[in-house]
Amino acid sequence: MSAATDTEQPVSGRSARKRQAILRAARDLFLRRGYAGTSMDEVALIAEASKVTIYKHFSDKHTLFIAVVTDAIDEAKAGSQSLVDKLGHSNDLELDLRDFARQHVALVTQPHLIQMRRMIIAEAHRFPDLARAWHRVGPERAHASLAGQIDKLVARGQLQVPDSLVAAQLLNYLILSVPLNEAMFTGRDKAYSRRYLNRYADEAVRVFLAAYGPGRS
Amino acid sequence: MSAATDTEQPVSGRSARKRQAILRAARDLFLRRGYAGTSMDEVALIAEASKVTIYKHFSDKHTLFIAVVTDAIDEAKAGSQSLVDKLGHSNDLELDLRDFARQHVALVTQPHLIQMRRMIIAEAHRFPDLARAWHRVGPERAHASLAGQIDKLVARGQLQVPDSLVAAQLLNYLILSVPLNEAMFTGRDKAYSRRYLNRYADEAVRVFLAAYGPGRS
Repeated sequence: MSAATDTEQPVSGRSARKRQAILRAARDLFLRRGYAGTSMDEVALIAEASKVTIYKHFSDKHTLFIAVVTDAIDEAKAGSQSLVDKLGHSNDLELDLRDFARQHVALVTQPHLIQMRRMIIAEAHRFPDLARAWHRVGPERAHASLAGQIDKLVARGQLQVPDSLVAAQLLNYLILSVPLNEAMFTGRDKAYSRRYLNRYADEAVRVFLAAYGPGRS
Repeated sequence: MSAATDTEQPVSGRSARKRQAILRAARDLFLRRGYAGTSMDEVALIAEASKVTIYKHFSDKHTLFIAVVTDAIDEAKAGSQSLVDKLGHSNDLELDLRDFARQHVALVTQPHLIQMRRMIIAEAHRFPDLARAWHRVGPERAHASLAGQIDKLVARGQLQVPDSLVAAQLLNYLILSVPLNEAMFTGRDKAYSRRYLNRYADEAVRVFLAAYGPGRS
């Protein structure tokens, strides 16, 4: 908390800013040149960091890449986390699920994430560790987080779910699959319109609640 | 039909076999080297075809690639088409949907199709035409075909569907998304167990029918 002294604070601030500059430079290079085509030297050059500094933050290119991916996903996740966290104690589940679904699909289909996703799939054969890392910090964490909220809703009698992880996976892909697969295969780098995305978000929520909502009587 | 004379028949048989040999050689090379790394000369060499022959069948590499993709997808589709065609006049929709879903996910997650899918996503930025062609002959045709059957079921009062294309898209991705996305990001090239795939196929059908089945009264 306030354990940092006044003199440590600015140093740590500078260090954090330098780390961010390295991550930004690396994201840009990885997206333009792919994993294999990017060198630590060039990242250092563009980030205006010395090689000593870059290796102090990231021990090798693999570590740097994982950090870039984690950073991009965390940034997207931050935009919908509060909506996920609300779900478990929601009093208007349809409305709150729809808010989450609309925000989630808009964040995940951002052009830089689509490009990164394509690049990671492209490299999955040569660098399976990188693709697994993406799957772990991206969909797997998202599914676990959603499953936790689904468990709370089941406990409150708001949902009837045979397996909360499977239900979370299906909700996630009901929301994302159509626009995400289109984006993968069209080479499209523009953002979708909200209107287009909302259509799938809303229908995903309707389907999810029909399957897992409490039985109507 | 039987318009071909006895003398034409063997020639056309030889020609069709040569075409298949070229497609097999091309598929193998594209999967190993990517689109850019494959040359028509090498395909001709491996298929034991002359350059004249190869260009008689396929006017350029782009055309050859589209043919390879279409061929691979047609082969997979052939394995489930009869199950799709049954759906519209099904008298046990849950059973028939489950048969289709189980077969569909097993076919689409075959290792060579996973590899091809990864390769096409990888090249989507440089060769958007190829990726669009895959999307057209793969998911888009599958969705249109499923939507046609859904329309018949709606007409028979077996389903209640606001938009049959959206319902078809969601059914397709409910069935495929979890194993397909896992396969994309794990660099995995082995087939999944039927048991694992069936779990998602069956839950997809349950969710689909809960959302689009006729209201219980």
